[in-house]
Formats: sequence, C-alpha cells, structure tokens
Amino acid sequence: MAKSAGMRRSATFVSAFARGLQLIATFGPNAQRMTVAEAAARAGFDRAVTRRLLLTLVDLGYATTDGKQFELTSQVLRLGFSYLAAMGLDVRLQPHLDDLSRAIQESVSVSMLDGTDVVFVARSDAAGRQIASSVRIGTRLSAFITASGRMLLSMQPDEQVLALLRTANMRAMTRHTIVDRRELLATVQKARKDGYAVNDQETEEGLLGAAVLLRNRSGRAIASLNANSHIARVKKHQLVRDIVPKMQDCANRLSSLLL
Amino acid sequence: MAKSAGMRRSATFVSAFARGLQLIATFGPNAQRMTVAEAAARAGFDRAVTRRLLLTLVDLGYATTDGKQFELTSQVLRLGFSYLAAMGLDVRLQPHLDDLSRAIQESVSVSMLDGTDVVFVARSDAAGRQIASSVRIGTRLSAFITASGRMLLSMQPDEQVLALLRTANMRAMTRHTIVDRRELLATVQKARKDGYAVNDQETEEGLLGAAVLLRNRSGRAIASLNANSHIARVKKHQLVRDIVPKMQDCANRLSSLLL
Repeated sequence: MAKSAGMRRSATFVSAFARGLQLIATFGPNAQRMTVAEAAARAGFDRAVTRRLLLTLVDLGYATTDGKQFELTSQVLRLGFSYLAAMGLDVRLQPHLDDLSRAIQESVSVSMLDGTDVVFVARSDAAGRQIASSVRIGTRLSAFITASGRMLLSMQPDEQVLALLRTANMRAMTRHTIVDRRELLATVQKARKDGYAVNDQETEEGLLGAAVLLRNRSGRAIASLNANSHIARVKKHQLVRDIVPKMQDCANRLSSLLL
Repeated sequence: MAKSAGMRRSATFVSAFARGLQLIATFGPNAQRMTVAEAAARAGFDRAVTRRLLLTLVDLGYATTDGKQFELTSQVLRLGFSYLAAMGLDVRLQPHLDDLSRAIQESVSVSMLDGTDVVFVARSDAAGRQIASSVRIGTRLSAFITASGRMLLSMQPDEQVLALLRTANMRAMTRHTIVDRRELLATVQKARKDGYAVNDQETEEGLLGAAVLLRNRSGRAIASLNANSHIARVKKHQLVRDIVPKMQDCANRLSSLLL
C-alpha cells in the first residue's frame, strides 16, 4: 500500500504515514466521532485503508472506538506538547511571562509561525486585564496582520515573504487591517529594520499589539514574544518607547532557556 | 514494509504509520535536532526506514532539514490543537474560565486524562494570584495525586482504576502525598460519590485543589474543571462549601459548548 499514485511524491515518501497524519487532521469540530465510511469520505481514502489506519490509532492509544465510531484520545496532545517542550517553550517559560506581564501591566503571549498563520502557544494575563479575545492558546491568526507574525516573517528573505503573501488569504478584520500586499511587505521590512513589530488595531478595534523575537541559545529566532494593550491605556508611541524595551529585556533573559 | 515482526500487532496494523508517530514522539527536549542515525537509534528503527519517515515529515511540512539534521516544525501543534477544538476545548472556553476565576478569586484550569496522567489544556489566572507552579498548559501530573485526575478516574469502573494503579509510578511530591494503592482507590471512589475531588497539598506544599467534571452536550465527561487555592487563604471545608458549587455552576454552563 506504500505507493498509490495520488500520494506518492518521491521514492522516499511513506504514503501510509502521510495518510495517517492526514487522517488525524481530518478530525475536527464538525467531525469529532466518525465511522470508517465518514472518515474515508472526509480524508479521500478508500475504506479499507481508512479502517486499517483508524485501527492502528486505536491500537496505539491515539483513538478509541465503540466498534462503529472512532474518536481521538487526549494522547494526541503529546505530539504537540512534546514539540513545545523540545523547543524549551514549556513550563519553564511561564514564570518569566508572568513577571513581564506584572511589570508592564499588560497581557503577554508567545506565538510561533506556521505557514501564513501565527499560533499562540503561551500566555500570561496582567492582573485585572483580560487578554484580547483573539489571543488564546491554540488560536491561529493571519501572520501578516499580527505584530508577532510580522516579526517572525521578518526573519525570512523578501522573496519568501512575497511567496507566502501570494498564497495568503487576506481578510480585513477591522477597518484598520492592511490587506494590500505591497503595504504588508513594507510592514515586514519595517519589523526587520526596527527589531520589533506593531499591530495597530488590525485584529481587533482598540487593540494595540507589539512583538519582539525570542531567540534560542544559538541565536536562532524560534518564536515571538507579544504584548497587548488598548488605545484607552497606551498610545502607540508609548508602547514602543516604554513597553518594547522591557519585552526585549525579557526576551534576552529567556534566550538561555530556549533550545 | 508494512509487517515487520516487532511492530505488527494485528492484520490491520499499519506499521509505517505507527513507526512514524513513534518517530515524532522521539523528538524532545534532549533531541530537538537529530540526524538519521540519531533518530534511528532513539526510535529503534533501521536507518533506511527512519530516513524515509523523516523525509516524509519534511515533505508534509511537519519537519525541516538542512540535509543532515532534522527537526519538527510548529505544524505538529495542529495535531494536538485540532483535537482540543474537536472537543470544544478551545477559544470558546476561555471567557468562561476568566469569569469563574474572577468570581472565586482563584486560578482555574481544565485538564484531561491521558493514561495515568492528567494533562492541563487551559488555564485562567485570578488577578494578583499566580497559578500554582505545577499547573501550566501541557503540564502532566500523576492522575492519582491530583483532584482533576481523581475526578476523571472516577468515571471508570473500579477494576479499570485498579489496573491503572498497578501500572502507575507512584512518587510522593510532598509529605502529604498519598501513595498507598488502597487509599488512592478510596480517594477515587469518594470523588465518584461526592461529585467533586480534592487535593490537599499532595502536589505542592500549601496548595489546595478542587475538581469537578466537565460534561459535553451528550452528558459524557470529557475533562475536569479545577480551582487552586492556598491554605493561607482558604480552609479545605470552605473550598468545598463556597467554591465547589460555583465550579459546578460553571461546568453546567460550559456543557452546551463541549462537543
């Protein structure tokens, strides 16, 4: 079963593995429990292949079945959380995020780039300041309209940023959202030059965001450290003048923890 | 390559998929970047198989390579986070956790059972009260010594709890930690009877924890809702009398969101 036409990409491509991962990703909010037939239809595989992959997941503890319907178990969380631990983006980070959030009196978060999205992997709320509604663990936002995304994209050469821009689905979230590709490239270039990025109400009306890079011990940028404020509390120039330097101090301290 | 001796469990078992998942789990804090030889040694596969699986991960965007060393990308986070979204344990939950934490003035969290561990998947900090150091997103703790674990274990019949107890690695974390198997079974039985569970300084000196079940729309328990306090603020009987009912109200409201 290793080499069907559609999935084979190269002589080394293991189709059964690729199909299995695709099958895991097939489960979702509208497909939490599926029969073999339903999973086969969603994944686009034949039923025999789908059944074998589902039973393999059950055998490994990644899924359960009542004999008819299959669903994933919480064991799949290990795949993602072990990745975060491998980067040092785990429990060791939290006290530092809590300290920063107390010091600047704003909510802070950490996010990573995944294609044209940023995904939030950690957060700490400032006392009495709930974090912006869009920033939760696991939340994905378009990289181009977030401070964190612009900061992380700025590590890539312009031609790669342009290639991503061409594939990105641009949607205005507020009246401030920049959707023009040339302007977006300019925001990424500015982030590269400044060493920080800003999001001025582009994801949420009133929400001001700033981001700096989190570099690991070897100096490689692996994530973004973000702070969110509100125009009612802080002007954009104050965010850059007063808060960004504290974020950079925190990022420098965190470097030794990041692998 | 589908049927090597060691991995084959049944006629339907897809070894290439099982090996691939095992390979993802092989990456970790001490093995963030690995050569084919290193990954093969850690996973216990031969190099040719390991190389094909690693190149498949690269092909799918789950890993990158410089031609020599391989490392996972943040795309693996999708596997776990899409699972949480599939259960309704995602961004929709957070405002309710924030409300509860404000109402009871204590930090709250949500956790799930994975074998003999509980894994924390969400949290909200009370203003000015940092959550216990042991409770972070992705943290795993022994189910038997946590309130959340006892609550979740109580959904299983006694013989299954006993079977898990036999495999669990019991380690005292404080002088209060119960490690006797008979006593631990009794704590699970008490949680089943009471509808809530308590952890009295067993994971951290001074830390009081309480847990209630989070049931989904169809009434099935899928996670635990937890609150953490400190003996300096709340006595155990006050936790049960004043805080547990508010947690149960919150859990009831959340039921409609959980899939």
